[in-house]
Amino acid sequence: MPQTPHIERHFTGSETVRDLVIGMSDGLTVPFALAAGLSGAIDTTSIIVTAGLAEIAAGSIAMGLGGYLAAKSDAEHYFSERVREESEVVEKPEIEAREVADVFQSYGLTAAESKPVVDALRKRPQSWVDFMMRFELGLEQPDPKRALISAITIAGAYIAGGFIPLGPYLFLAKASSALPISVITTLVALAIFGYTKGHFTGAPPLRSAIQTVLIGGLAAAVAFMIARVIS
Amino acid sequence: MPQTPHIERHFTGSETVRDLVIGMSDGLTVPFALAAGLSGAIDTTSIIVTAGLAEIAAGSIAMGLGGYLAAKSDAEHYFSERVREESEVVEKPEIEAREVADVFQSYGLTAAESKPVVDALRKRPQSWVDFMMRFELGLEQPDPKRALISAITIAGAYIAGGFIPLGPYLFLAKASSALPISVITTLVALAIFGYTKGHFTGAPPLRSAIQTVLIGGLAAAVAFMIARVIS
Repeated sequence: MPQTPHIERHFTGSETVRDLVIGMSDGLTVPFALAAGLSGAIDTTSIIVTAGLAEIAAGSIAMGLGGYLAAKSDAEHYFSERVREESEVVEKPEIEAREVADVFQSYGLTAAESKPVVDALRKRPQSWVDFMMRFELGLEQPDPKRALISAITIAGAYIAGGFIPLGPYLFLAKASSALPISVITTLVALAIFGYTKGHFTGAPPLRSAIQTVLIGGLAAAVAFMIARVIS
Repeated sequence: MPQTPHIERHFTGSETVRDLVIGMSDGLTVPFALAAGLSGAIDTTSIIVTAGLAEIAAGSIAMGLGGYLAAKSDAEHYFSERVREESEVVEKPEIEAREVADVFQSYGLTAAESKPVVDALRKRPQSWVDFMMRFELGLEQPDPKRALISAITIAGAYIAGGFIPLGPYLFLAKASSALPISVITTLVALAIFGYTKGHFTGAPPLRSAIQTVLIGGLAAAVAFMIARVIS
């Protein structure tokens, strides 16, 4: 679904940081919870490794490819709406001019107060279309090259995140030995990730760290309990 | 991270639809791929059911709670930025007035052409703040009640989606018997889901259906192959 990227003066993270956060957030949490959960039911790490790798593959494809197609359809949506606005400012200029005035009216401006802007935009059809795209439809021009880079970044971050909780299971034969190492390593990784994420998104880093650890820990604890109860 | 919901005339889906799509999209795909993947390595459905339920629990908590906290921090971000804008329009009205003119200048308007709007906004501080939040910072006022409803909707859709591929494994003892039923049922569900999603998001429904089936099918096929190779 199209979403308007926000323009924010104090946001220090780029789109790449956003993609890394999206991928790593789920990559650290879900494979961690799955491995911890299975440790509650099975003591053979080979099955847990199989499940973990299958999950990492599935999750990274679902997130990466899903993100790629969503970005592509955002771009198509933008351009089809733009074509429509371009024909509307030519064919129905009166209606479009009233729509500009309506935007301003919602901020308490009278038609007389917004008229100079409406008139100025009417003289510049290209800027008028830009204005309508942004202020009436709330759509930003997407970067056509973003989709692929975004997909690869998200999928890569998911895979990198997923190998942190899975690591101990790759090297140890017994789940009961791997679990505590996986839990400690992943909780530390979640804390560092949450702290860094807070730093980039402008949220208080310490609170961000606590929240990230909490989500990951809760997901893993619930998965462990479910697996133990049903096995 | 805060994202501005877009205002779109032809978008027929509500925020609830968006949340259902987010949750069900991953809920149908990831547990499906995990179960299919494990079927490539293990023939006992009880282990696959354990892994599947652990994954559904982990995924729904990660998505639901993650979404809840993201919405909460969006709301906090909005209000802290709003407080700052409110003090800025009082303390540095000249700078803020120039920022309004800058917004219009990026659409080719001269300072003289945008002056009536700048003057009109200066007379109405509350509308001025509203205008700056939306047009300078690109932030929309969040609904404080949305976060919880959104979290429950996403998590519920993930769980509902996840039980479709897992269903056959719950009733059959052998993974080799459950897998084909799970694949057919889930691919049909993905097609229906993709078609419906297209209808709501404005994408061509048939193409949306094909894409959804493709992502789910590819994730499951890759997971199956990885599990088969390593086991």
